[in-house]
Amino acid sequence: MNIVDKLVAASRRNNSLLCIGLDPDSSQMPEGLDIAQFTCRIIQATCDLVCAYKINFAFFEALGERGYYALEAVRSHIPADVPSIADAKRGDIGNTSKAYARAVFEQLNFDAVTVNPYMGCDSIQPFIDYAERGVFILCRTSNAGADDFQSLVCSNREGRQMPLYQQVAQKAAEWNLKGNIGLVVGATAPNELSIIRQAHPMLPILIPGIGNQGGDLEKAVRFGFNPEGGMAIINSSRQIIHASSGADFAHHARRAALALKNDINSIRQSMVKS
Amino acid sequence: MNIVDKLVAASRRNNSLLCIGLDPDSSQMPEGLDIAQFTCRIIQATCDLVCAYKINFAFFEALGERGYYALEAVRSHIPADVPSIADAKRGDIGNTSKAYARAVFEQLNFDAVTVNPYMGCDSIQPFIDYAERGVFILCRTSNAGADDFQSLVCSNREGRQMPLYQQVAQKAAEWNLKGNIGLVVGATAPNELSIIRQAHPMLPILIPGIGNQGGDLEKAVRFGFNPEGGMAIINSSRQIIHASSGADFAHHARRAALALKNDINSIRQSMVKS
Repeated sequence: MNIVDKLVAASRRNNSLLCIGLDPDSSQMPEGLDIAQFTCRIIQATCDLVCAYKINFAFFEALGERGYYALEAVRSHIPADVPSIADAKRGDIGNTSKAYARAVFEQLNFDAVTVNPYMGCDSIQPFIDYAERGVFILCRTSNAGADDFQSLVCSNREGRQMPLYQQVAQKAAEWNLKGNIGLVVGATAPNELSIIRQAHPMLPILIPGIGNQGGDLEKAVRFGFNPEGGMAIINSSRQIIHASSGADFAHHARRAALALKNDINSIRQSMVKS
Repeated sequence: MNIVDKLVAASRRNNSLLCIGLDPDSSQMPEGLDIAQFTCRIIQATCDLVCAYKINFAFFEALGERGYYALEAVRSHIPADVPSIADAKRGDIGNTSKAYARAVFEQLNFDAVTVNPYMGCDSIQPFIDYAERGVFILCRTSNAGADDFQSLVCSNREGRQMPLYQQVAQKAAEWNLKGNIGLVVGATAPNELSIIRQAHPMLPILIPGIGNQGGDLEKAVRFGFNPEGGMAIINSSRQIIHASSGADFAHHARRAALALKNDINSIRQSMVKS
């Protein structure tokens, strides 16, 4: 099954646009649990509430060898019908990206990956070549430094003036011959999100940045979701997985996920009505 | 010791600007050796000929668990006085980059890392904060797709028009308060290399792309090396480590490394004379 179909199927089954970001911080976990046990219990408690999970590689790599095993354990704990997104932000020259794609799609069997566009087409192509898997290209990220380069107004080869993030979105759409490309646009940049959604009504958009990063949920859904087309995958990480640092963390994670899923659905419903 | 001092010391001791890229491809290795054994023998055979080693994470990650152990083994096999560069091209929002920096600098103890600038200042700052370690920021990469975005002419906040790769170089120079930043500029783009070296005479430049990628060695040294300042770190990978796929691979790797080191030195000498 192609990644877009798998995302849509999970989203319909669970009636959810919520993606939970698995960025476990051991300083906020109850004592006696390791990172794999903690994260697997979050998955058990929430897997009927989400359209996807996004696993942040950095938090596992920072732990060295035991992080590697935890990453494998967490990946294999995600139910087969829930899409798994490797938030790895990879990208390198062709033969190197090919090796990264093997790592993410074959060794670890993720359904999708985030990639960085700075190195251009041939750095992303090896990921796209896995036609059933998904490739979310960083477009306008959720962090403060996003403006340093992504907002610079550039002229493309046809002489058209657009900020860099729009140039990236346009190229992503051109490269989408297999229908497996999406974009990453942060909820902290609602105007940019709106521009991107209007220019690319059918592309799936992965939207991080609500919760601790301060993004606006209402605008993320209104501007990111297209009832007639492109899916919005609304990610929240710390707000859910670290809702409580006590022994009842999984219960609180489920409560937080359910509340956010419902908030998102209320906004969607008001869009369809209006 | 600061990374720049460590690079200069290794370069003087071995009279070399050569960096060997450790991108092992198991299809080109003699039978009976694993990736760690192969790569450690390359290091043993060449460590008096280089100013640094650059280890490409992708080729280890593609092997899963045994790749992780091989990466640790290879890293710890590099002599303490030879700088080790993690070619990982990381970059993410602040708290995530912090975790990546921990992975590369603390878990694996690399002296330097390559990072991707697309996400801006706060995605790179956690790496820069390790003041003794080095941060090589992708500027103009060696691959064909580099032109897709890096060459787009942009206006910066002061209204100055420059291609994106020059904007990145300028920001890198501004961020270099700890003196531990360098740039990555491919040998396949000699004109861009020349422009960057003239604009930033003191920044170290890591130059991949000679050998299999078709970069011009003479121009890489002439345009990248500044006898009065910024070091050029000339990387070659496959041309050296896979010079032979027979049992005598280490001998051939040494021969290829020595020849390339000498070629580079001939070019440098002609520059000092002229």
